Amino acid sequence: MTRKVYMDHTASRPIDPEVFEAITPYFKEIYGNPSSLHSFGLDAKKALEESRIKVTRLIGAEKPEEIRFTSGGTESNNLAIKGVAYRNKKRGNHIITTTIEHMSVMNTCKYLARQGFEITYVPVNNQGVVDIEKLENEINEKTILISVTYASGEIGTIEPIREIGKLASDNEIYLHVDAVAAAGKIPINVEDEHINLLSISSNDMYGPKGVGALYVKKGTKIHPFIHGGGQEKGLRSGTENLPGIVGMAKAAEIAEGEMEAESKRLRLLRDKLIKGVLGSIERSYLNGHPTERLPNNAGLRFSYIEGESLILSLDMFGIQVSSGSACTTKTLEPSHVLLAIGLAHEEAHGSLLFTLGKQNQEEDVDYVLEVLPGVVKKLRAMSPLTPKEMMK
Amino acid sequence: MTRKVYMDHTASRPIDPEVFEAITPYFKEIYGNPSSLHSFGLDAKKALEESRIKVTRLIGAEKPEEIRFTSGGTESNNLAIKGVAYRNKKRGNHIITTTIEHMSVMNTCKYLARQGFEITYVPVNNQGVVDIEKLENEINEKTILISVTYASGEIGTIEPIREIGKLASDNEIYLHVDAVAAAGKIPINVEDEHINLLSISSNDMYGPKGVGALYVKKGTKIHPFIHGGGQEKGLRSGTENLPGIVGMAKAAEIAEGEMEAESKRLRLLRDKLIKGVLGSIERSYLNGHPTERLPNNAGLRFSYIEGESLILSLDMFGIQVSSGSACTTKTLEPSHVLLAIGLAHEEAHGSLLFTLGKQNQEEDVDYVLEVLPGVVKKLRAMSPLTPKEMMK
Repeated sequence: MTRKVYMDHTASRPIDPEVFEAITPYFKEIYGNPSSLHSFGLDAKKALEESRIKVTRLIGAEKPEEIRFTSGGTESNNLAIKGVAYRNKKRGNHIITTTIEHMSVMNTCKYLARQGFEITYVPVNNQGVVDIEKLENEINEKTILISVTYASGEIGTIEPIREIGKLASDNEIYLHVDAVAAAGKIPINVEDEHINLLSISSNDMYGPKGVGALYVKKGTKIHPFIHGGGQEKGLRSGTENLPGIVGMAKAAEIAEGEMEAESKRLRLLRDKLIKGVLGSIERSYLNGHPTERLPNNAGLRFSYIEGESLILSLDMFGIQVSSGSACTTKTLEPSHVLLAIGLAHEEAHGSLLFTLGKQNQEEDVDYVLEVLPGVVKKLRAMSPLTPKEMMK
Repeated sequence: MTRKVYMDHTASRPIDPEVFEAITPYFKEIYGNPSSLHSFGLDAKKALEESRIKVTRLIGAEKPEEIRFTSGGTESNNLAIKGVAYRNKKRGNHIITTTIEHMSVMNTCKYLARQGFEITYVPVNNQGVVDIEKLENEINEKTILISVTYASGEIGTIEPIREIGKLASDNEIYLHVDAVAAAGKIPINVEDEHINLLSISSNDMYGPKGVGALYVKKGTKIHPFIHGGGQEKGLRSGTENLPGIVGMAKAAEIAEGEMEAESKRLRLLRDKLIKGVLGSIERSYLNGHPTERLPNNAGLRFSYIEGESLILSLDMFGIQVSSGSACTTKTLEPSHVLLAIGLAHEEAHGSLLFTLGKQNQEEDVDYVLEVLPGVVKKLRAMSPLTPKEMMK
């Protein structure tokens, strides 16, 4: 019997019903512009500033004014990296990042490389962990920024941010962390982890789409990126998306409260899924780190077949998953993240990413485990790559 | 008796109830990522592409792919101007704009000036109309872009875009038009008016905040501004804010249908308000053009008193208005737009902007006309600038 199972929470998520309830008045009744001087403006301003406080709590920031709202994770990453690069180019033109960053970090760095910045891409090991020793060796007197993901949404591996933060701090280099996939799922503390800039996204925490934030530690020298009316203390112009911001803050508040229990629940489901797949399907493998991984991430791969065929076949059974980042589906290239952990092109192409979420229950995992082996078998039977001895 | 009268529709607006209804399922049910390959992704992709079509109709664009969604008017203006500047700098480094543009155009141009671009600010006459002859004289072989507002939200004056478009087109220069204040209120036709790039905003048409669009005429050479996963045909990365986009499209559809009747209705209310104020309050004046102005805009000014005091006094009577652009309230500087139409500093400071909207009824205008003369009189009585003969 077909069941509806959405396990593509890295690509998109529904909004939390409580968040939806919280934002509704901001569409209809509390619609003032926070910059307006009259009482409608003041009500809006109050909601805006309260939202900052809620976001600080999720990431261990000390000051509400360190939170600047943006249109999402991609803009936050652009603002952080370009903003630091342009503001500090007299000090140096060298930026260090890794080979497993999100496209918004990768392509921003590529863009800056064309503007005369030097970018070093530090490799990761085959579990996706950044090589800290190599990172340290790449630091030179021109290094102004290190940009590392807190955890890759694609392979799930959680990076040793605290050590990288210590290294950056000891060398007086800014650390930017893309925490879009991690925030709300695992504890983050920007103060303890020596983070100067941290990107987060609302929808990744079941908040509304089209809103995100950049944490900017007090004293961090950064240029604005979107110019205009000088909102967000001059760093991000444009009339504030108040329903979005209030929704993001509510989502952050909920995530903070539920994180411990929900992460535990998701880890159990995730591990049941991984164990079940690896146990029932031969030549199936886990991508990323076996334990130091996001609680909801089960990145798997299957020899001899293509992730895209798997997605379309599973979709017919009501199961929605992805082959990796939704951003990279437009090209036929394999994911740079999967290549970075040492997979061959055909291995990368055989990857399938299950990302669990709030709605998922144990029955969903059971259903996937019931359906997937047959789908893999059928696709392998049609694949010219499958060895004959597996076909019997 | 106090009445609630919101006449600050240039700063912010509630969402249209029909729009809210249209977007609700996109928060909860149709939450896929348009880049995903599975059926949830396809449903999202379909909604995204249908939204483009609705927006084309509002502005007379021919091809849905000419509409690229952004996070709002400010981002659209940044993308248009920086995108053209960076992409075409080998052809030339000269940009022409006017002295009455929105801060997002002004500050983007200032930023580009620091990057080596030459910016010419063409003046306007005392009704706010761009001097086309001067504009023509400023064109040289290095001019790559002309950026002019369709109509200033602050003084209401509608610019002769068709003539400017003809001029730009004859000289093979791109024309960017900031139509944030005009779209949905007056007819726009990008094809007939020779417009290459047009910025519009959702909330200015009673759609959700945090979403806008940039019309990019096919063939226009422009660089992306936010880098990442390559959404919006590579021009604007970031997971699409689908509820926002669907809401903007619905708002555009409603605006297109209601424009004629609603503009007529608003013009009558606006003219009653202007006539009533000028007739009952001495030394009160209209800012901007008497007839070629946005149907909802009544920019007024009063000698001897300050707009800010007027705003706060009217707020106590339940009337919300502004002194000009909400973006400029943070500084004590008078609005550059009001100075550009030749007002002295003290005249600019005495300005008060009424912008009417869908909710406003004739009773609202009557109430303002009942309250305002007394408020002005009281403030003038306290002002050291008021001549003695007016105090009797």
